[in-house]
Amino acid sequence: MPRAEKALIAQIKRMAGKPGRAVIRGIGDDCAVLRPPAGHELVITTDLMLEGTHFRRDWHPPDSVGYKCLARGLSDIAAMGATPMAAFLSLGLPQDVRQSGVKGFFHGFMRLANEYTVTLAGGDIAESKRGIVADIMVIGSLPRGRSVVRSGAQPGDIIYVTGALGESAAMLEQLMKRGKKAAKDDPLSRHFYPDPRLEVGQYLRARKLATSMIDLSDGLSTDLDHICKESKCGASIVRDLVPMATGVGSRIALDGGEDYELLFTANPSKRIPIEIAGVPVSEIGWITKERGVKLIEGARTRKLVARGWEHFKKS
Amino acid sequence: MPRAEKALIAQIKRMAGKPGRAVIRGIGDDCAVLRPPAGHELVITTDLMLEGTHFRRDWHPPDSVGYKCLARGLSDIAAMGATPMAAFLSLGLPQDVRQSGVKGFFHGFMRLANEYTVTLAGGDIAESKRGIVADIMVIGSLPRGRSVVRSGAQPGDIIYVTGALGESAAMLEQLMKRGKKAAKDDPLSRHFYPDPRLEVGQYLRARKLATSMIDLSDGLSTDLDHICKESKCGASIVRDLVPMATGVGSRIALDGGEDYELLFTANPSKRIPIEIAGVPVSEIGWITKERGVKLIEGARTRKLVARGWEHFKKS
Repeated sequence: MPRAEKALIAQIKRMAGKPGRAVIRGIGDDCAVLRPPAGHELVITTDLMLEGTHFRRDWHPPDSVGYKCLARGLSDIAAMGATPMAAFLSLGLPQDVRQSGVKGFFHGFMRLANEYTVTLAGGDIAESKRGIVADIMVIGSLPRGRSVVRSGAQPGDIIYVTGALGESAAMLEQLMKRGKKAAKDDPLSRHFYPDPRLEVGQYLRARKLATSMIDLSDGLSTDLDHICKESKCGASIVRDLVPMATGVGSRIALDGGEDYELLFTANPSKRIPIEIAGVPVSEIGWITKERGVKLIEGARTRKLVARGWEHFKKS
Repeated sequence: MPRAEKALIAQIKRMAGKPGRAVIRGIGDDCAVLRPPAGHELVITTDLMLEGTHFRRDWHPPDSVGYKCLARGLSDIAAMGATPMAAFLSLGLPQDVRQSGVKGFFHGFMRLANEYTVTLAGGDIAESKRGIVADIMVIGSLPRGRSVVRSGAQPGDIIYVTGALGESAAMLEQLMKRGKKAAKDDPLSRHFYPDPRLEVGQYLRARKLATSMIDLSDGLSTDLDHICKESKCGASIVRDLVPMATGVGSRIALDGGEDYELLFTANPSKRIPIEIAGVPVSEIGWITKERGVKLIEGARTRKLVARGWEHFKKS
């Protein structure tokens, strides 16, 4: 059983450490109090992580669950080109979770929080009758009017993606086939500890290089479709240009979720470095006036259907 | 089954309506974008609501669950003396929830959101394998440095409470004894539709009347203990002065949770109206230098133990 609520909050407060500059009041009152930098606007995201849907206790160590919970939120902040200020965590814990598991969760969570100097500024703790629930909320900031949104892509823009795709979904497939053994093989997998691309997002935003951006959480085919729908345009992708993780086939690289890489578009007049903050950046296609997403495979062109993750979708 | 995720989000976006003034971008991108009023600081709260812990599908209609989910967050904003700007909702839904239930939830949620012009600016939707999960996050704002916190009570301050206490906990006791029949008797109960005391909180903050404030979510004995601990002081409460809801005994009025009334302290030199924004305000005791909370019952004085709600507390 976790510690009693008050003792647990006191423990989390100790682990959270001193609040950062923008956080006037952290854990311990009815609300946290934040003072964003002058001339900045705020970006806010929430991401729900549920046992049985997003992770399994027998596959994912507590450290990974805590890390990934925050990483998912930070990845959305990266996709706006913003800098994270504070995180808020709502945690539902069943009676059968051990105190060591709670500690492991916060170990992973705080490791990532400290890496990007994000203050854990508040949240809620409750007993869950039915599995672990972790909802993350992250607030970031950036100069007024400068957020990079999904709707700014223009026909003729080049499409770029960071890193290599498919490793996370490939690991999930391995876990489904081989269970926990698969996890043991690769504790450093991006499936367990995805690094949010905050520096890349901030680099692109600060230099006004990207016309639109999204993080790859649902899969390239689905997330590119989001950009096209919001920007009222289409896209063509060249399969051989899509960077795929070692040993990953194109189906998983194109449709697999949870890569947490960045997908963005830029005017062809802009020079995009082949690497930003140590992360490779690949050109994979272009934005078209004609709607729909196409995949060019050698001499053939076919429709790329959005087959990434969607909750409650009838299969 | 709920609608597929994309259709569900489109439906929620329609129900959420046009974003309010401070919300530059609402539902539909990686993050929402907010621009708080100049010279203001932000207050942020999250509140988790879990099936089986905070509500039961056979006791609480969907409309009440949605309403209460937002009311819990707004009540924390009220306790800082702030004005709510935007809400974010993370919703985990099992396959067996009907579309009519989802609609009912948002009907209750948006009714309260519209009453206080709070924009539903974002969130997350996921399939839950194990019961309904609703996590609310609310962002409010107030002039810099003016938030009313828990730690400002001074010895000699008078303690006040809004409304009447115990009705919510009494209803819960009825539900446990008599099940759904109890709920049918009183659809307007504060247990199902608690009105957050936003106007009262803002009134007290704007006139600098309160030295400390908290909302009564865990019960008077527990929440007063929070004020005393944070303010490093004690308190004496006169039992006959505590406003109790009709037919509610003092045990439930003192320890019962979920009243969502405001508890605050004020310097004795300040005149506090007996009613603010239509809500009665009662003087119930005073802050003492000596630590601990005491209850005065006629000629007897006893220690008031914090017996309100605490998760994971061994009974």
